[in-house]
Amino acid sequence: MKKKLAELKTRLAEINDLQMVASLLDWDQHTYMPQGGAQARGRQLATLAKITQERFIDPAVGRLLEDLRPYEESLSSDADDAGLLRVTRRDYELALKVPPKFLAEFHVHIADSYQIWTQARPANDFDRVRPCLEKTLDLSRRMAGFFPGYEHIADPLINFSDYGMKASAVRRLFAELRTRLVPIVRSITSQPAADDSCLRLHYPEAQQLKFAEEVVRRLGYDFNRGRIDKTHHPFMTKFSLGDVRITTRVKEDFLGEALFSTMHEAGHALYEQGIDRAFEASPLGDGASSGVHESQSRTWENLVGRSRGFWEYFYPRLQAAFPAQLKGVSLERFYRAVNKVERSLIRTDADEVTYNLHVMLRFDFELALLEGSLAVRDLPEAWRERFRQDFGIAPPDDRDGVLQDVHWFGGTIGGAFQGYTLGNILSAQFYDAALTAHPEIPEEMRQGRFGTLHGWLKENIYRHGRKFTMDELAQSATGAPLTIEPYIRYLGTKYGELYDLR
Amino acid sequence: MKKKLAELKTRLAEINDLQMVASLLDWDQHTYMPQGGAQARGRQLATLAKITQERFIDPAVGRLLEDLRPYEESLSSDADDAGLLRVTRRDYELALKVPPKFLAEFHVHIADSYQIWTQARPANDFDRVRPCLEKTLDLSRRMAGFFPGYEHIADPLINFSDYGMKASAVRRLFAELRTRLVPIVRSITSQPAADDSCLRLHYPEAQQLKFAEEVVRRLGYDFNRGRIDKTHHPFMTKFSLGDVRITTRVKEDFLGEALFSTMHEAGHALYEQGIDRAFEASPLGDGASSGVHESQSRTWENLVGRSRGFWEYFYPRLQAAFPAQLKGVSLERFYRAVNKVERSLIRTDADEVTYNLHVMLRFDFELALLEGSLAVRDLPEAWRERFRQDFGIAPPDDRDGVLQDVHWFGGTIGGAFQGYTLGNILSAQFYDAALTAHPEIPEEMRQGRFGTLHGWLKENIYRHGRKFTMDELAQSATGAPLTIEPYIRYLGTKYGELYDLR
Repeated sequence: MKKKLAELKTRLAEINDLQMVASLLDWDQHTYMPQGGAQARGRQLATLAKITQERFIDPAVGRLLEDLRPYEESLSSDADDAGLLRVTRRDYELALKVPPKFLAEFHVHIADSYQIWTQARPANDFDRVRPCLEKTLDLSRRMAGFFPGYEHIADPLINFSDYGMKASAVRRLFAELRTRLVPIVRSITSQPAADDSCLRLHYPEAQQLKFAEEVVRRLGYDFNRGRIDKTHHPFMTKFSLGDVRITTRVKEDFLGEALFSTMHEAGHALYEQGIDRAFEASPLGDGASSGVHESQSRTWENLVGRSRGFWEYFYPRLQAAFPAQLKGVSLERFYRAVNKVERSLIRTDADEVTYNLHVMLRFDFELALLEGSLAVRDLPEAWRERFRQDFGIAPPDDRDGVLQDVHWFGGTIGGAFQGYTLGNILSAQFYDAALTAHPEIPEEMRQGRFGTLHGWLKENIYRHGRKFTMDELAQSATGAPLTIEPYIRYLGTKYGELYDLR
Repeated sequence: MKKKLAELKTRLAEINDLQMVASLLDWDQHTYMPQGGAQARGRQLATLAKITQERFIDPAVGRLLEDLRPYEESLSSDADDAGLLRVTRRDYELALKVPPKFLAEFHVHIADSYQIWTQARPANDFDRVRPCLEKTLDLSRRMAGFFPGYEHIADPLINFSDYGMKASAVRRLFAELRTRLVPIVRSITSQPAADDSCLRLHYPEAQQLKFAEEVVRRLGYDFNRGRIDKTHHPFMTKFSLGDVRITTRVKEDFLGEALFSTMHEAGHALYEQGIDRAFEASPLGDGASSGVHESQSRTWENLVGRSRGFWEYFYPRLQAAFPAQLKGVSLERFYRAVNKVERSLIRTDADEVTYNLHVMLRFDFELALLEGSLAVRDLPEAWRERFRQDFGIAPPDDRDGVLQDVHWFGGTIGGAFQGYTLGNILSAQFYDAALTAHPEIPEEMRQGRFGTLHGWLKENIYRHGRKFTMDELAQSATGAPLTIEPYIRYLGTKYGELYDLR
């Protein structure tokens, strides 16, 4: 049994190596690769994906999993090996269900579709992507079809990123959240907007990067096991548990960009850097789900990074870094600036309060498209209509409307967005539990100390990697299943103090 | 037949993809990778090497090569497909002869040996690497043993990097060169040393990099298909024919470092960027041999980059970039500074004239070690003795003596060094032929125009990739086999004008 387990681990390590290698290719493509490298890079990534898939669905892997079943059953379910076998089996069964030929067709289509989108978006040309999107919808439905027995056609797709979640559960959760959010948004946006002009002065790139680096170092990001590079659309990636990198972008006329996007990606990275090193090169050495991952980026970006306590410590340092720009700007004014709520067109630029409305809109459209109750050709108009309804404004064009997000042009329709709001909800639930365990956290934060919070998150979430599902983590870390109450309480308290909430 | 050829090409493209991917891992390791990534990176490279080898020695590749033999025989030998089949067959036969188990043992040993060397060199501790080196020698001999029928035991090892060369031929060539070189070196080094103090002022890094970038752009390096990054030991690498990168290093107290090392690596890169794009992802899409490759780095670094004509164009620009440092330094003084000849300890710092003596010393020791006429334990003393004989000075320690080069600690003993001097010899032979075809080249160079030279090199050498061997290229490009005469003439003329050569 020992020998078989070792053989399985060796095979999985090789597969993980190939996946990490693909991540490096992807990172390089989005940071340093010259234009001339693009064509070959696409082919190299396809080759890696093909070889990885071949090696994973090798019947020998299935036989090892079968042979190891008695061993797995002899273990407590929270043993590492039990987790490894459980998660590997889950991945293996998923992988077996999707025919390689279909997967290849899907990947080719997605590469084309992404290419076309990069041109159609700036040209505000929905018609150009429409046939692509129709094919993506068709392929997404066929993908779901490989997993018969679902309750909703979106369920298998949601399962890829948020294992164990169902459309019905997300719908219920989102409906409840929406009922509570819309009045808060209405109430805030009917009041005078906060003044964030202090963020919109000239802030030189090099100093912004330096400050952002100091911040995330202090939060606990380990530069011996990571680094920061510039890119167009910031992301976190890793090539091993010892090499977890973040990327950022800088706008010299907006201080909020690099600062918060670096904290956001550092949140993802703290999660990955906190995974038990024993899970290196194994399927357990990854985040539990897209929702849990997002909960950590949002914790460090928002719950920590947009809190008054955080800025009590960092604001004097920021002022010292940018004396000309921030001279005479009080902490209070700055705090209000970084928490400005407004009805905006772009999800990724949205504030904490309105953000989830952007996500829900997309989630609902994904379901409607998959169900067939909404046609791709009607999407732009439906977008404008729903936007008007939720935000009271409408996008002037498709570029900043339905074309704004890469997700549907670089993956399936379905499963792409729910994780963002699940993450927001979870972030408050985890944070609440951390505060209950360690009431000293806010005071420590005012002193620039984040170790207690970081330690609690590592102990209760990060170190487990993929061993437990989102539900299991919520239960074990907070003693309750996923609930929106802490999140609503958080928003209510924070924004109730900033605005007059009726 | 068409179908079989296509299948072979598909297989070779996948293998090439994996090799290019490994190069990216290597590049990242030497440019940006944080320390924490090292362990996993080693494993990932080993995984890639293993999978690449498995896929290449797949009997299906052998069968395709067999089946395609009649097609190959129907082609003219300079047809692309003929070249492809010839080179693939050669690689395949080499790969089959070395047992995978031996290769794995060799790679593990080399990784360890490299690790130990990185510590032993700064500690000046030859005894620490001695057992490693003894094992490397043993493995090198065993490696040669897989290719029975050789004339000299070094021949199979030389064949890996300079296909078709034999120890006896190199020995003859080097002996002749040595006879001609030693008196020149003696004569120059008995005269007062050139004054290179103008290179040894403070030159800020950013401006050095900017200037080096301008220079190589002007030489013809295409930044749409490449980029420059910093590293400890500069190298050129590629991830496709559309992505050929160079690395450099900067010393703020020595202008010569970044400038000439960037031109050197750009020379390698011009070669790779000039390969026929039809050879993308095929075994032909690479340089012909280590000697031919080195001929191009040395052409652009020395024949061009240390010529008076080159500096007639660039020196005013260099002065404009560094007005404080170079004010009052005449072109002539600068030209003499960058061509200073001196007896130095380190090969990589050596000038054009003494460089080859460093190489020959190492080549002779490789042969003696492999033959068994020199024992590893006697190497340090033999090094000092030979150094005294050739240079009239002796290294004060092993750090800057026998321990200085990575080659024997990161690969076989045998085949590692001859390419450097073959490259010097070839560079002058090719350059001579280019000048005969285009006598206007020197005048163009004085005007900062390098297109005619670059074009001739592309047409006669670069575009062919690996289709022809070094001998074939020398013959087709210059109408003669490899000969030292143009090189000796070049050194004699250039240094005869700079020094009083008796």
